Amino acid sequence: MPEALNACSADARWLAAAAALAARARPLSAPNPGVGALIVRDGRVVARGWTQPGGRPHAEAVALAAAGEAAQGATLYVTLEPCAHRSPRGPACADLVCASGLARVVAGCMDPDPRTSGAGLARIAAAGIEAEFLSSPACARSLSGYLTARRLGRPEVTLKLALSLDGCIALPSGESQWITGPEARAHTHAMRARADAILVGGGTLRADSPRLDVRLPGLEGRSPQRFVLTRGGVPDGWRALPAPAALADMEGILHLFVEGGAGAASAFLAEGLVDRLLIYRAPILLGGRSALGDIGLGSLSEAHGRWRMTERRQLGSDTLEVYEACNPAGS
Amino acid sequence: MPEALNACSADARWLAAAAALAARARPLSAPNPGVGALIVRDGRVVARGWTQPGGRPHAEAVALAAAGEAAQGATLYVTLEPCAHRSPRGPACADLVCASGLARVVAGCMDPDPRTSGAGLARIAAAGIEAEFLSSPACARSLSGYLTARRLGRPEVTLKLALSLDGCIALPSGESQWITGPEARAHTHAMRARADAILVGGGTLRADSPRLDVRLPGLEGRSPQRFVLTRGGVPDGWRALPAPAALADMEGILHLFVEGGAGAASAFLAEGLVDRLLIYRAPILLGGRSALGDIGLGSLSEAHGRWRMTERRQLGSDTLEVYEACNPAGS
Repeated sequence: MPEALNACSADARWLAAAAALAARARPLSAPNPGVGALIVRDGRVVARGWTQPGGRPHAEAVALAAAGEAAQGATLYVTLEPCAHRSPRGPACADLVCASGLARVVAGCMDPDPRTSGAGLARIAAAGIEAEFLSSPACARSLSGYLTARRLGRPEVTLKLALSLDGCIALPSGESQWITGPEARAHTHAMRARADAILVGGGTLRADSPRLDVRLPGLEGRSPQRFVLTRGGVPDGWRALPAPAALADMEGILHLFVEGGAGAASAFLAEGLVDRLLIYRAPILLGGRSALGDIGLGSLSEAHGRWRMTERRQLGSDTLEVYEACNPAGS
Repeated sequence: MPEALNACSADARWLAAAAALAARARPLSAPNPGVGALIVRDGRVVARGWTQPGGRPHAEAVALAAAGEAAQGATLYVTLEPCAHRSPRGPACADLVCASGLARVVAGCMDPDPRTSGAGLARIAAAGIEAEFLSSPACARSLSGYLTARRLGRPEVTLKLALSLDGCIALPSGESQWITGPEARAHTHAMRARADAILVGGGTLRADSPRLDVRLPGLEGRSPQRFVLTRGGVPDGWRALPAPAALADMEGILHLFVEGGAGAASAFLAEGLVDRLLIYRAPILLGGRSALGDIGLGSLSEAHGRWRMTERRQLGSDTLEVYEACNPAGS
């Protein structure tokens, strides 16, 4: 029994490593999900791959090409079930796997795309290759945007709040630069670099004219599309989202990063359209402007049980806490 | 050198143990500080003591009486310098120590009371007993109310805030029971039990009629005096504090626990009269009533560098964070 447990746990660890690799794909893999793949033989990585910019080649194709003969008898760990559908943009990964000489494939998520959805692993198994699905939280997290888009028909929404201890985003005068320190702001830029699009409210756009670009060395090219929540006109370089519910119409966007202000944040929360909260909290008291307006709660009991902390870390003198919605709307 | 370091560190640990013991004295030792004392010989505790209800006997007297002959050649670790002044209520501890047969005394804080203030340790040293002051953060923390009262002429003020992630203390409707869970509320009751007095604002008193008593088994007798921040009349069982600055007139109170609401909290913060923050934070978003009103900050730079986190712990699904003022007013 301990051996079986260890074997299982080693598979989970390889999948988590593949998920870490998948982070390199985001967001340039759009409109495709960022997938990671590892080919392992005798406990050693012989090749690795992740989805390339523009979405092709897929992670499995990259890893198999890198492995060459070393794929014979090896195991492929991949964050998402290999695709079963042929496309003019490239072969189906399931077919590549069938022809690869691999002995075993372990996938961390099943693909909800109806063209694959089990057909990928089934085709591989039919070719005499051991084909397993091992549900991996790390893989699901790395594919959260894609899974949200497939399941709910909209991008995954991350709301960022940079707050004082008393939950303020500005002094009574409106002064808001800076609540958090340089480490927290650099982290925000790294999070922007992983998003496909960023959104602010109309008031914030008018008041702060935020650049919302990525100001980190080597990541300048990763500045995402910029949206403003408004029914009115928008400046050059911006696009309008008329209401949170219009998320469903955002094409090719898997990850939306909502940066405030209070009006936009409250509008998304009131609609139940926030999947993840990033709260950067500075050790200061302000007695100023609130992070949120009314979010439509009728009673305190409705407020409880909605958010689960998944991460906490120190960033200089500030604390970052990440919360995930316990029951994403519609799931 | 390592030996000297170890010796020093062992002394610091014994002082921290004496400080932990001192917690048993609070708040029943009022109007005297709650002191802890350990008598140690050959690396073993031979007796212990803490300030008794009403303030006498002192911790050293209790420990020496318990030790008897075992005090010969032993070391006394005491959180506060033994008192040098004779009182109709009991002997000076410095005199007891001189007659005790102890070989060594280590104090974790010097006594700012001008009647002692170095005279205690000096008298002990003059009697041929090794007498040391080893500055101990644990002892200073355990005596924070007494040290604040001596240095600033007012009680130590702890402000409790029970908040949502977005810094709210109630829904827009005013509903506020409960933001935090039972573990956090029990912790608040334990903190109340250690305070000499509790204060709420006039609005909170009228709106919530809080009992502010200690509802923990075995601690019911520890419910502190109840104050309301008001220039008007008060109900039976309550006393009025007309303004935060009137703290200086509170007699016999070393620890004041301010429980809100927003008006009272903001008034104390605006005057720089909060020494410690206890923030109980629930993993919920409310978009409701703010914890604080204007606290008189002219710019964000004034807000930074005022608070230092000294503790964080999980209480059920809530988080408790303790902050101390970096530069207590007047120190």
